[in-house]
Amino acid sequence: MDFRSDNVAGAAPEIFAALQAANAGNVASYGADDISRDLEARFAALFEIECRVFPVATGTAANALALAALSPAHGAIYCHQESHIQVDECNAPEAFTGGAKLVPLGGAAGKIDPAALARALGLGWSKSQHHPQPSALSLTQATEAGTVYSPAELAALTELARGQGLHVHMDGARFANAIVSLNASAADLTWRAGVDVLSFGATKNGALAAEAVVFFKPALDKGLADNFLFRRKRAGHLFSKMRFLSAQLAAMLEDDLWLRLARNANARARQLAEGLGALPGVTVAYPVQANEVFITLPAAMRQAFLAAGILFHPWSDDGALCRFVCAFDKTEAEVARLVEIAAASA
Amino acid sequence: MDFRSDNVAGAAPEIFAALQAANAGNVASYGADDISRDLEARFAALFEIECRVFPVATGTAANALALAALSPAHGAIYCHQESHIQVDECNAPEAFTGGAKLVPLGGAAGKIDPAALARALGLGWSKSQHHPQPSALSLTQATEAGTVYSPAELAALTELARGQGLHVHMDGARFANAIVSLNASAADLTWRAGVDVLSFGATKNGALAAEAVVFFKPALDKGLADNFLFRRKRAGHLFSKMRFLSAQLAAMLEDDLWLRLARNANARARQLAEGLGALPGVTVAYPVQANEVFITLPAAMRQAFLAAGILFHPWSDDGALCRFVCAFDKTEAEVARLVEIAAASA
Amino acid sequence: MDFRSDNVAGAAPEIFAALQAANAGNVASYGADDISRDLEARFAALFEIECRVFPVATGTAANALALAALSPAHGAIYCHQESHIQVDECNAPEAFTGGAKLVPLGGAAGKIDPAALARALGLGWSKSQHHPQPSALSLTQATEAGTVYSPAELAALTELARGQGLHVHMDGARFANAIVSLNASAADLTWRAGVDVLSFGATKNGALAAEAVVFFKPALDKGLADNFLFRRKRAGHLFSKMRFLSAQLAAMLEDDLWLRLARNANARARQLAEGLGALPGVTVAYPVQANEVFITLPAAMRQAFLAAGILFHPWSDDGALCRFVCAFDKTEAEVARLVEIAAASA
Amino acid sequence: MDFRSDNVAGAAPEIFAALQAANAGNVASYGADDISRDLEARFAALFEIECRVFPVATGTAANALALAALSPAHGAIYCHQESHIQVDECNAPEAFTGGAKLVPLGGAAGKIDPAALARALGLGWSKSQHHPQPSALSLTQATEAGTVYSPAELAALTELARGQGLHVHMDGARFANAIVSLNASAADLTWRAGVDVLSFGATKNGALAAEAVVFFKPALDKGLADNFLFRRKRAGHLFSKMRFLSAQLAAMLEDDLWLRLARNANARARQLAEGLGALPGVTVAYPVQANEVFITLPAAMRQAFLAAGILFHPWSDDGALCRFVCAFDKTEAEVARLVEIAAASA
Repeated sequence: MDFRSDNVAGAAPEIFAALQAANAGNVASYGADDISRDLEARFAALFEIECRVFPVATGTAANALALAALSPAHGAIYCHQESHIQVDECNAPEAFTGGAKLVPLGGAAGKIDPAALARALGLGWSKSQHHPQPSALSLTQATEAGTVYSPAELAALTELARGQGLHVHMDGARFANAIVSLNASAADLTWRAGVDVLSFGATKNGALAAEAVVFFKPALDKGLADNFLFRRKRAGHLFSKMRFLSAQLAAMLEDDLWLRLARNANARARQLAEGLGALPGVTVAYPVQANEVFITLPAAMRQAFLAAGILFHPWSDDGALCRFVCAFDKTEAEVARLVEIAAASA
Repeated sequence: MDFRSDNVAGAAPEIFAALQAANAGNVASYGADDISRDLEARFAALFEIECRVFPVATGTAANALALAALSPAHGAIYCHQESHIQVDECNAPEAFTGGAKLVPLGGAAGKIDPAALARALGLGWSKSQHHPQPSALSLTQATEAGTVYSPAELAALTELARGQGLHVHMDGARFANAIVSLNASAADLTWRAGVDVLSFGATKNGALAAEAVVFFKPALDKGLADNFLFRRKRAGHLFSKMRFLSAQLAAMLEDDLWLRLARNANARARQLAEGLGALPGVTVAYPVQANEVFITLPAAMRQAFLAAGILFHPWSDDGALCRFVCAFDKTEAEVARLVEIAAASA
Repeated sequence: MDFRSDNVAGAAPEIFAALQAANAGNVASYGADDISRDLEARFAALFEIECRVFPVATGTAANALALAALSPAHGAIYCHQESHIQVDECNAPEAFTGGAKLVPLGGAAGKIDPAALARALGLGWSKSQHHPQPSALSLTQATEAGTVYSPAELAALTELARGQGLHVHMDGARFANAIVSLNASAADLTWRAGVDVLSFGATKNGALAAEAVVFFKPALDKGLADNFLFRRKRAGHLFSKMRFLSAQLAAMLEDDLWLRLARNANARARQLAEGLGALPGVTVAYPVQANEVFITLPAAMRQAFLAAGILFHPWSDDGALCRFVCAFDKTEAEVARLVEIAAASA
Repeated sequence: MDFRSDNVAGAAPEIFAALQAANAGNVASYGADDISRDLEARFAALFEIECRVFPVATGTAANALALAALSPAHGAIYCHQESHIQVDECNAPEAFTGGAKLVPLGGAAGKIDPAALARALGLGWSKSQHHPQPSALSLTQATEAGTVYSPAELAALTELARGQGLHVHMDGARFANAIVSLNASAADLTWRAGVDVLSFGATKNGALAAEAVVFFKPALDKGLADNFLFRRKRAGHLFSKMRFLSAQLAAMLEDDLWLRLARNANARARQLAEGLGALPGVTVAYPVQANEVFITLPAAMRQAFLAAGILFHPWSDDGALCRFVCAFDKTEAEVARLVEIAAASA
């Protein structure tokens, strides 16, 4: 059993079926096919607002291209110090923005501390030629710590940002998990909370490789999407056979597949956290609000997992803090078996 | 019938089958799965030399990342004035190299004129701080004009380049078509002819979206691939579920699928050129050596095609010169039908 | 005697005097001193229009930063194939634009052929995501061939460009020489002829190191200068002791110093061309309209120059075509002596 | 009296005299003149080792270009969170490196805490394609807080860095002040302490505008300077009349002018700190080891300074913490007068 990441899983059968269906016949390339052209209507319905939707294949591409639409090369982008864009994208945001500066901020449980943001914005950089120009705030929902921002928490941060003229990006690699967790609408967690652009993730949630950069109407009115076609192509992220990207995204939204998959992933994470958390010597590090569990385990339990071939990521230098991620396809039985093995080790 | 491009076609059934097979189970992400790890051995066997293979999803990504490995930001990259990297990639090569200059060269039928290359290299730029530093030559095989460079033609150009210390890139978006056309070995058309790095194309030849950047041993010995993992990731082109890229490439090489597909595409192009070329008022513009046909057609014939729903690209301002591309899945019957319609219009 | 370039000369005494005067006392840094603040009024008077003026120290910085204000990273910049920005700036324009493509155009005597520009703009790149987006035209006045564009020639080119939405840049490293040559107003040669931004050169004309990027009101209304302060600083081209850059520029405009210096330089070039041109075996290659002379000389004459310690640049492979540049401080006697030596060699 | 910065001062008379002397005659441009060619010997003598010296005009250019020689675009550069490169260069380091990430580290009194560096280097980024690659450490000497690193402190940090394969840069905008303060040799504070490349500052110390990027032999042996000529030109920082940059640097080293100027600046800062520090309600924030004083003043004293036209920078939101910088030309009498005014306000 492999709990190292949600990307150790393959793709959901519905996604494969959609690819097969999309394969029929000759169609216009580069996004002029019917599936691609219908995407924006699907997203508009989901988000209850006009939007523009640009499929790409990786989350790093989605994030870095979205940020490049929000920040000039002389800009500053505020993010959590453990965010994917800061730590795990090998400077892709810097590359696509032309060298904008990411300003890492602290905050418990993967969430930016509003006071830290306020302090950073209070340094007087704006309008001074010497300093990077504050240009964007990037929030991760669900966070890298497996937690979620409530709509009120989002609003507190985006209001600070907007008060200084910043645009707002959301890294939604696990957006579905957040929606399910908060039982909120897609609109409430994005543009109604002040988000301009969303990296809408599908890969971690059961696609082969598909993400979408979604600009909501307020961002469109500000012209933020105007050059996105060129940005995407210039980055080598325009697919010639676009139907195959679009079909994955369309299938995700069809009959709420994306929510069903995320619901299972979240439920398995809770099951895991509750099961292990009830055992002696175990501490759950953060609230389990999505499909990730950060948890401190006794050495004997970790030993037992290794012996049983159960894979997970050690998250601290001493290996006691561990990360388990439940992909869309983990089953209740699998997690139950994991808990059994843990219990036997105690 | 759609002859606008090879990318109006979907994917070959063998590719889909390979994706399905690759979907089984949990595997390590980011290229540490078995299919991905076996790729280099497959390519080494094909190319008869040690090589490193980096899958990406688009041809533009493959080309721009490969060139970035060959040229510093202050470099000059020599290419045909109608090459894809110069005309059709929206400055992706400039983006990924950090601003290298593409020097467009002339030459008949899509092939760089060696005299033009010699002139450009003779300008005395090398070692002078004022000028871009000659760093790479990029060749397209098969060319944008549907022609191919013979091994001798390749060698003439690469020798000029190597004589001045340039590295050599080959854009092989239609490499399979060239191999089939020349009945040459993959080695003879690449490293034995002086090529350091190949953009090995699969998308146009029947994959959903898969290309590989292949560095041959001489390039490895020069350290050219040393940072490629970081370049790819930083560009957002590292797939988390890498197995799905790798499986397409592996399937292509399995039982020479790639050659079978290209052989058909080439044959259909020849059938089309010969069929139409025999009709009055028709002139084939370039030798048909791959799967593209550039051909001047009478207005009545073009009219007849449009009326029959046959799609192709006008290639001159007056529309007389037209481009037909035969994808891997065009059938003999389809092309025969096209010729019939043409003949009826005469 | 050194005719290799105008930059083998030092600085004019008036420039030194201005620096000495500017050295007095403590003043605000980074352009907030009085000399710097008065610059825009001086330039507005000269150009008869509101403008913003940004001093920098080198022509390459002026050109590359100006172009970065006119073209996005996915843009195409049209220029003469022998222009300084294309050939002599080691990819600085590409660097500061983030990787825009320079499209080199032909044209006799250093001037862009309007038909070549029309052809390039007629390729259908605009609005297509595959291609670089036509964004700017760059003209050099006086040209690299020592010729000048008449106002009508300028207008013909800028109208073509503006018709397609391009912005227009002028590389005026030798702008003073053009003004003097054409006896035209600074306004007529710039914004009235459709120029948005001028690289106003002073270094070649007798400053130590000072250029100005000048945005005219039409460019300001388009917002093109909005981020220039940040662009300049980010490029390391903001001087802390700005007074020393500004003082050079102010001194140039004081009592028409810049025109007096250029008038002498131009006169010396004419004297040289007429003197040598009257000798047997000598051919002047281009009309001598500024301070550069391109001229074919017999071997014996070149030999005589070398023997006399007269420095100049061979401009063709066989050395017969030569370039002589007359700096602001060349004297009538010096050129007369050069002609004598030449005559004696015949 | 103006204590806002060292750059509110003009230039030292010796510097002007050197410029005047350099102005004589025609000389080769772009660094091929005698003054420029002799620079490396002068620096080699000063630093007691072979070195390469590249003059540029601004500190931001020196720093950003030096860092670009040390870090690839996918690199991470470790620096103090209040360093000039992080806070005051409007993303120039990001621009010239192609988007490297600056990792800001804490530490008291402007000096990087070795434990913070060790923690950052312990994150396991090296060799992993997901993360920025640790590539350089940048130290500021004297620091932004007016303090200096002792040779032992330098060594502790550079050893950590070198142990992980990082290169080391020193921002020496106020290097002369550090040398004087520590009474150490230039070699001991640079390459002997593990520094590869120094931004050698002259502007703040009495030049008009001149800095030098100095690569020491160990860096040369690693090839770090190999492309610097191209980097500098591509950034628009190659001066045509290079003699005017070089002459300023040569004059600084002549008869230890740079040390004399810095010695006075440091002495004035100490005088100021001791004088004000002895007054009631005044606290000196950091050890005064160079020419900057960070000091908390009572409101009445600040009021008295303003009334007397004494300029300085408030450094905290409430204005109580203030920065005074003593330029090379501040006199003992001026500082004494300042202290008198302060004393009278108490």
